Amino acid sequence: MTNNLLSNLNNPDDLRLLDEAQLPQLAQELRNFIIDIVSVKEGHLGASLGVIELTIALHYVFDTPNDLLVWDVGHQAYGHKILTDRRENFHTNRQLGGISGFPNRSESIYDTFGVGHSSTSISAALGMAIASNLKGDYEKQHIAVIGDASIASGMAFEGLNHAGVTDANLLVILNDNAIGIDPSVGALKKYLTAVKEGKNPRQNNMIKSLNFDYSGPIDGNDIFAVINELKRLKDIKGPKFLHITTIKGKGLKQAEEDQVKYHAPGKFDAITGEIHKKLEGNLPPKFQDVFGLTVLDLAQKNEKIIGITPAMPSGSSLNYMMAAFPDRAFDVGIAEQHAVTLAAGMATQGMIVYCNIYSTFLQRAYDQVIHDVAIQNLPVIFCLDRAGLVGEDGATHHGVFDLAYLRCIPNMIVYAPRDEIALQNILYTAQLGLNHPIAIRYPRGRGSITDWQSKYLGKYDKIEIGKSACLKEGSKVAVLSNGTISNNVTLAVAKTKHPETVAHYDFPFVKPIDEIQLHSIFKKFDSVITIEDGTVKGGFGGVILEFAAANHYHSKINVLGIPDQFIEHGTVAELQQLCKIDVKSLETLFSSY
Amino acid sequence: MTNNLLSNLNNPDDLRLLDEAQLPQLAQELRNFIIDIVSVKEGHLGASLGVIELTIALHYVFDTPNDLLVWDVGHQAYGHKILTDRRENFHTNRQLGGISGFPNRSESIYDTFGVGHSSTSISAALGMAIASNLKGDYEKQHIAVIGDASIASGMAFEGLNHAGVTDANLLVILNDNAIGIDPSVGALKKYLTAVKEGKNPRQNNMIKSLNFDYSGPIDGNDIFAVINELKRLKDIKGPKFLHITTIKGKGLKQAEEDQVKYHAPGKFDAITGEIHKKLEGNLPPKFQDVFGLTVLDLAQKNEKIIGITPAMPSGSSLNYMMAAFPDRAFDVGIAEQHAVTLAAGMATQGMIVYCNIYSTFLQRAYDQVIHDVAIQNLPVIFCLDRAGLVGEDGATHHGVFDLAYLRCIPNMIVYAPRDEIALQNILYTAQLGLNHPIAIRYPRGRGSITDWQSKYLGKYDKIEIGKSACLKEGSKVAVLSNGTISNNVTLAVAKTKHPETVAHYDFPFVKPIDEIQLHSIFKKFDSVITIEDGTVKGGFGGVILEFAAANHYHSKINVLGIPDQFIEHGTVAELQQLCKIDVKSLETLFSSY
Repeated sequence: MTNNLLSNLNNPDDLRLLDEAQLPQLAQELRNFIIDIVSVKEGHLGASLGVIELTIALHYVFDTPNDLLVWDVGHQAYGHKILTDRRENFHTNRQLGGISGFPNRSESIYDTFGVGHSSTSISAALGMAIASNLKGDYEKQHIAVIGDASIASGMAFEGLNHAGVTDANLLVILNDNAIGIDPSVGALKKYLTAVKEGKNPRQNNMIKSLNFDYSGPIDGNDIFAVINELKRLKDIKGPKFLHITTIKGKGLKQAEEDQVKYHAPGKFDAITGEIHKKLEGNLPPKFQDVFGLTVLDLAQKNEKIIGITPAMPSGSSLNYMMAAFPDRAFDVGIAEQHAVTLAAGMATQGMIVYCNIYSTFLQRAYDQVIHDVAIQNLPVIFCLDRAGLVGEDGATHHGVFDLAYLRCIPNMIVYAPRDEIALQNILYTAQLGLNHPIAIRYPRGRGSITDWQSKYLGKYDKIEIGKSACLKEGSKVAVLSNGTISNNVTLAVAKTKHPETVAHYDFPFVKPIDEIQLHSIFKKFDSVITIEDGTVKGGFGGVILEFAAANHYHSKINVLGIPDQFIEHGTVAELQQLCKIDVKSLETLFSSY
Repeated sequence: MTNNLLSNLNNPDDLRLLDEAQLPQLAQELRNFIIDIVSVKEGHLGASLGVIELTIALHYVFDTPNDLLVWDVGHQAYGHKILTDRRENFHTNRQLGGISGFPNRSESIYDTFGVGHSSTSISAALGMAIASNLKGDYEKQHIAVIGDASIASGMAFEGLNHAGVTDANLLVILNDNAIGIDPSVGALKKYLTAVKEGKNPRQNNMIKSLNFDYSGPIDGNDIFAVINELKRLKDIKGPKFLHITTIKGKGLKQAEEDQVKYHAPGKFDAITGEIHKKLEGNLPPKFQDVFGLTVLDLAQKNEKIIGITPAMPSGSSLNYMMAAFPDRAFDVGIAEQHAVTLAAGMATQGMIVYCNIYSTFLQRAYDQVIHDVAIQNLPVIFCLDRAGLVGEDGATHHGVFDLAYLRCIPNMIVYAPRDEIALQNILYTAQLGLNHPIAIRYPRGRGSITDWQSKYLGKYDKIEIGKSACLKEGSKVAVLSNGTISNNVTLAVAKTKHPETVAHYDFPFVKPIDEIQLHSIFKKFDSVITIEDGTVKGGFGGVILEFAAANHYHSKINVLGIPDQFIEHGTVAELQQLCKIDVKSLETLFSSY
């Protein structure tokens, strides 16, 4: 097939000049375009491949950007981006300075709402629809495209519950492919499956109960079927709900067959679909695997241990425990609020619960952490993966607020390990009984100890709560680091002109803080630097400032971390440089003492 | 009727010795007991009156505390408290050192889970039920009692969605009285009403769709009906759902007729039900009314203004605008997450949205504030009522974390007015266009300006963003206050021995901070005191510490506010004393300079 349609389409105005009969060819070209680029540049794959027909149909039938289109989560929006002015920039996807991997209002007028976290689309589109009504525009359509994993999240239900009693021109399209990043779970998923399989009720009564004009399910990969139904719905006023079924990864055989792996497969062969194997032999383990393997090991020895993940079995590596102990490890779906309070309920009955939630997603359950766990001082063990800068996912996903929003909560212990060994030891220590909730935050990606699994896994040392450590003595300036950013400090010190001037302390506990160590540091050093992979506003640095003020120390304190701005996408190394917490910036700073 | 049953019942063991035929008399006695005490001691009334029969039936049929009972929200649990060892202490309800107004694990083994915020019961009880299964106890029952307003919140849906695919012994009882604090709203409410009215579907298919064994609706104020159904359900394994209908305020005519007012009526005549009128003539206005009346006034002048409240029309006083502009003021139900993202969606279309959420409930929408509003820098106006110490509602309701959890978010403006005039002026200023989201936090209760409404309402001055003010000059120590706690400072300074030594600055903006003023303060004063009605960890005091460190000032800084512990219930005055931010404590402190 010659690539002659897509290369001439810059935006939906061009698209709408095509004949309907040409659209299957366009769909094929768009798929190939995405596969070609993602295979070398990496990124999310399966979700966008599944909605190619829907994407084309939406822009073909509706008058975008006048009609407003919101993509829930947004990792399925690659086709949308390519069709809306960004084909030529698509190769810069997720790179520093390039286009974002998610819809982004500052990038295009076709991106009506910034997304990244799931289940926001119904509320956002409803808000737009109500605004249009108030402005007297009763023709404009407002469309939320949401997956079956995302619609099971409570927030989406809240949106539906409100929308159903309005006369807003809202079209909710349920893209039902039975999978989020991992396969969908829960009673709603079971119900939707029954609907799809033609079991009673064939019509989706649950949605009709919420007062929506319901249609479907239809085959969402049949472009003519989708176009026909969208044309029909276009002229219907009020809240409407279209249920389509699609295949995640559609059009790339391997992606259809292994939908979890091809959600974001890394580099692969665009023709065969084969994923390029990385030579992992000598690489240190991912922190998520340190969590997953350690919790598995601990669970084998203690039957009270339970694991919970909200929809991230493979991302968190809780899937090891889920495979070994399916009764004790739970994927509760995209339901962070429920995950936390479920953990609290279990903890009241003496269970030891590891509740694994990405740092950025724990924001979804902040109240439950305070109200259901901390007030009752229940010893839930929060494991916050993807803490700090996460890289290419960008502003919506950086886990940089957790230290600030958690340390103000009474009863909480807040810990960030500096390496794999510290992570496994705190996981071990936590199940010995802390009598407090604890949050353990660790980053995306790999640690630094190549032989961790063979040499350390399962060999635990108990960690003393609140204890810091001096990693290196020094004469002029004390550097206090929290978490894995410690590595940058170590590397920078080694490179600096006068390493003997720099002392380095590891403060894994943000709370409780090691006051004894701090007294000795402030008595000895006139200059103190704090460094963390979190916001400089109110984070670990703030703890040190509060201590110094309360104890009347007057040393100069320099707080390093994430500045008071949202950090975009790029590699972690690039973003650290931007925040001046990379090795080179630290080396320069240390050399100035 | 002689009060001869209740006075001999100390706990459910005693209750279970009664004949079923005696229970209607007990119900009457329990109602009278609650009415008698709440009429003089104040507290929540209507909710507990509505579930008297259910409360008795639950403890009569189930083996509490072995069977585990979770009351959603918990303000309906007075009957439960009285029947479970706390009859004699019930008169201390909500007082400092007395029993809590909500179930509380530290108070009684019958209080299996601490509550206060809504919609947590299903998740908590499910967690307990799963734990029981894992411990091999398949007989134990786990019961969540949840109202129709609470079950419409997304978190409850998440709990149902998970429970439906488990074999947990969970009984969810929907107490459907069509009202939370204000009347229930939304599509689910409409659907439940149809079910109750016998319209198709008579059976509650929505709940059955989620895989629950559904029964009902039955009359929840018919004690024999409830007992019979509970006895039947007791022996059924797996997830069960009982739909009962009750009348909020049942048994007190006025409370049945004006359910909003009698939710928490204050003092009233126990026999006539008449509420004791307070002489309000010379009292300053409530801050909620300053908000409600000001927004109403502004909305009359600017048609782009929209108001949103998640289920608090009367508590927030948004009901003024709702009455005048029903198309532009929305009660979205207990759906804080949706409320915030709905506001964001509206803001993308140029609407000016006042999103009013109690400080403690904004914790429920923390991610939406960051992800849907702040990242996109949408100028949503968050109005956080009940900020700071709220008094008798206690630990679950104090709005003391907001300064810490909001100020770490880029793009946010964070403001706390020191009085009614400042509140109305910032509400006015916000709709002039700030190009940023703003959070305006103000306390429960009344201000200080008796003639505010007649003299100031509608007469606005624009506030300069980031500007502080010197309220009083002084020679030795600078006191920097944020918000209404400023009044305590003013009163304390007046009482102190040498008022001339104390300078007082009002810093309503926590972010952006007035750096010019701070430079001049730190250049002049060796001693600085910060004071706020929020956590000392990471709050306003932290801003000042960060500024001082960044600018190398060495003045002694004393940070006052809410200490790092959960503060119980009591009057605001008592709790301020406990936190050492009352007038007397401040006077003593100021006198030491």
